[in-house]
Amino acid sequence: MMSALALDLYELTMAQAYLDEGMEEVATFSLFVRRLAAGRGYLVCAGLEAVLDFLANFHFTSSELAYLESTRLFTPRLLERLERMRFSGSVRAMPEGTPCFANEPILEVTAPITEAQLVETAVINLIQLPTMIATKAARCVTAAGGHRLVDFALRRTQGLETGLAVARASYLAGFDATSNVEAGMRYGIPIAGTMAHSFVQAFASEIEAFRAYARAYPDAAILLIDTYDTIEGARRAAIVGRELAAGGHRLQGVRLDSGDLAVLSREVRSILDEAGLQRTTIFASGGLDEHAVARLVEGGAPIDGFGVGTMMGVSVDAPYLDIAYKLVDYAGRPVLKLSPEKATLPGAKQVWRVREPDGLARDWIALVDEGKPEVGAEALLADVMVEGRRIGVSPTLQELRAQCAAAVGEVPEQSRRLTASVAFPVRPTARLEALQREVELAAPMDHR
Amino acid sequence: MMSALALDLYELTMAQAYLDEGMEEVATFSLFVRRLAAGRGYLVCAGLEAVLDFLANFHFTSSELAYLESTRLFTPRLLERLERMRFSGSVRAMPEGTPCFANEPILEVTAPITEAQLVETAVINLIQLPTMIATKAARCVTAAGGHRLVDFALRRTQGLETGLAVARASYLAGFDATSNVEAGMRYGIPIAGTMAHSFVQAFASEIEAFRAYARAYPDAAILLIDTYDTIEGARRAAIVGRELAAGGHRLQGVRLDSGDLAVLSREVRSILDEAGLQRTTIFASGGLDEHAVARLVEGGAPIDGFGVGTMMGVSVDAPYLDIAYKLVDYAGRPVLKLSPEKATLPGAKQVWRVREPDGLARDWIALVDEGKPEVGAEALLADVMVEGRRIGVSPTLQELRAQCAAAVGEVPEQSRRLTASVAFPVRPTARLEALQREVELAAPMDHR
Repeated sequence: MMSALALDLYELTMAQAYLDEGMEEVATFSLFVRRLAAGRGYLVCAGLEAVLDFLANFHFTSSELAYLESTRLFTPRLLERLERMRFSGSVRAMPEGTPCFANEPILEVTAPITEAQLVETAVINLIQLPTMIATKAARCVTAAGGHRLVDFALRRTQGLETGLAVARASYLAGFDATSNVEAGMRYGIPIAGTMAHSFVQAFASEIEAFRAYARAYPDAAILLIDTYDTIEGARRAAIVGRELAAGGHRLQGVRLDSGDLAVLSREVRSILDEAGLQRTTIFASGGLDEHAVARLVEGGAPIDGFGVGTMMGVSVDAPYLDIAYKLVDYAGRPVLKLSPEKATLPGAKQVWRVREPDGLARDWIALVDEGKPEVGAEALLADVMVEGRRIGVSPTLQELRAQCAAAVGEVPEQSRRLTASVAFPVRPTARLEALQREVELAAPMDHR
Repeated sequence: MMSALALDLYELTMAQAYLDEGMEEVATFSLFVRRLAAGRGYLVCAGLEAVLDFLANFHFTSSELAYLESTRLFTPRLLERLERMRFSGSVRAMPEGTPCFANEPILEVTAPITEAQLVETAVINLIQLPTMIATKAARCVTAAGGHRLVDFALRRTQGLETGLAVARASYLAGFDATSNVEAGMRYGIPIAGTMAHSFVQAFASEIEAFRAYARAYPDAAILLIDTYDTIEGARRAAIVGRELAAGGHRLQGVRLDSGDLAVLSREVRSILDEAGLQRTTIFASGGLDEHAVARLVEGGAPIDGFGVGTMMGVSVDAPYLDIAYKLVDYAGRPVLKLSPEKATLPGAKQVWRVREPDGLARDWIALVDEGKPEVGAEALLADVMVEGRRIGVSPTLQELRAQCAAAVGEVPEQSRRLTASVAFPVRPTARLEALQREVELAAPMDHR
């Protein structure tokens, strides 16, 4: 259970001031990513399920309230409010797995301002990580061109709970399996694995280790062949593969984890083929990212599957999103921020997506109460929570995964490729632009 | 409670093979970082407390065992073993907050091989994140040169639980406070905060927002002044500061969150000083890392404290450690791995640290049963768990923080600075080198 205290102190001190001032009107906050990291042409949004869980269970426990009291920062009146507080607001959001772009609201929260403000940090955090990972994983899926991808990230994710979120987000984005057994149990993701170097080292010789593993898994063994020398390891694996075949079994695969994978995979393939082990697969791992996978696949390396770990699991080249949760409306008044490079668009919004026969054509960012900006446009934000209650049936992870694959497939190639250079066209509607000008012009007057 | 299923599948399939083969001897695994990221001259190790918690509570629940049974990958005999399994081994480790270097064991686990193998992923994960963050945070502390540092990372950490670990690790490494209220409650870390742009926007004018916040916190308000225009915001803050002073109160500070902080801080300081608000501090935030903090401090910007968030909280320039947990001894036989660029040192080890009057002189990596390599050397790895039980009294976070500050202060300047170029001298002892040669020579013979 996530704690309601997963927040920044200022959210509580602002709550104190709002209460003192009698400011309890409804606010809308909009969550969006300001800029995509270099090379990224799209995001795959994710994390909504965790946000809705958090909001549906939002409450302060008695020990949390006692701690807050001990800080002497809050009045008894605020603490009483917090004790009774549940999240009573509404959420509109894109379904998990939806491709989206810079400045598009992924999610909007409409609630009494104190509630909407208190959940800021958790909402940002719970969307950022899965969206960042699903985006990175979707790039790996593009790179792999249909080859098998397994999440190997758990040991290097930034936290163990994070490893679960990484497994879920990468599976959502099209990975085939995870080595994370807890994720397998919790989310029903297929689990997969091979063996460690330590296993080979624990035996007096490499071939003894291979034989022992093959005895335990005569039809499912993937032998790690680089502990001492990859080519020698491949020859020993081939011996064990023939022994298995003689008993009516099949060596499932070998794994390469170091060295020049393009060169080694060819040599190992030859060794296996010469031993009649054409159906024994080659699995590769070791510091792979989407670019390394793409080079191997494009170069025709005979590798059947990839274990992608750290580089995906921490989104190594872009380990955070420039994500924001900004007030856009308070008490029916649209608001914006003018800070340099951090300006925001005012008002609650909708995102409209226009498809053409060959894929996505453009998106519109519109005010929520506008109609369709053009015929055939599809609204991306849907009501998912009303008055603090989840509405509709949550899709299964399998359903989301299938929808994600279809939707990413519609992203134009120039935005989907690994080094995207052309931004997908996302435009504000005329009404939103007019409102922005109006609020911008009014702001300096209001605020002097 | 962390799940024992926080593991990679291969740890369980190897356990199956070990059980089938009757291999139940004691193994030692050594955890170390192979290479430091560019610019890093040292690591600050952390995470031991979480590892010991995990090991002390290690067990499989009935629902976890039912899930494992459902995978059809394991024999009833293994599942029975897992049901009874607790961690019965020993751990030797450096205290949290100890500065350390590449290839030095931070922690060694000695246990029956299956137990030591099953905890591999969790142990790596639980050491990696805090060590990476404490290292990054210690660099910020060096850069800040005594100025106040507050952890602002929670919204962008890779997970909410991760935010707690980041708050703890950054405080351990010398940060002064955190905005993360849950971390304040859980670890007793001082909490701190300012206000958000949304607060300013929710009011009809900026000065009304400032006055409202000052009413709530007449001696503790830090006003965020960049929502519309920083200089205008500073003038309005100065008005509110004088109003507070007239009532016998004091405006604690203002916060800059965008723009050229070096320039703006000087202008804002003048505005505050001209208003007689010499004791009102200036706090800066907005994408800061240790390099940005160092430039501001070295340039003499009149900034009293820094909120450091994302860049520290994800260790943005080095978001993972090249960390490994390697078998070094099985059944009394020292082992190593010869994979390209991933070779390991055999045998259970000790790290010895030699101090000279002006700080640390050198470290020795030795076999565990060697004596001191030279007079006055201090052993860094201590017994912290024996036969599955924690031994000794855990130091408090405050004690660890003080020890860390003292120990980092002893790291030579050329290794401590932000762009370290000279590696701290870490040498294997003659006996360790001899053993390595011996095992390397034997390995190819053994394994053909």
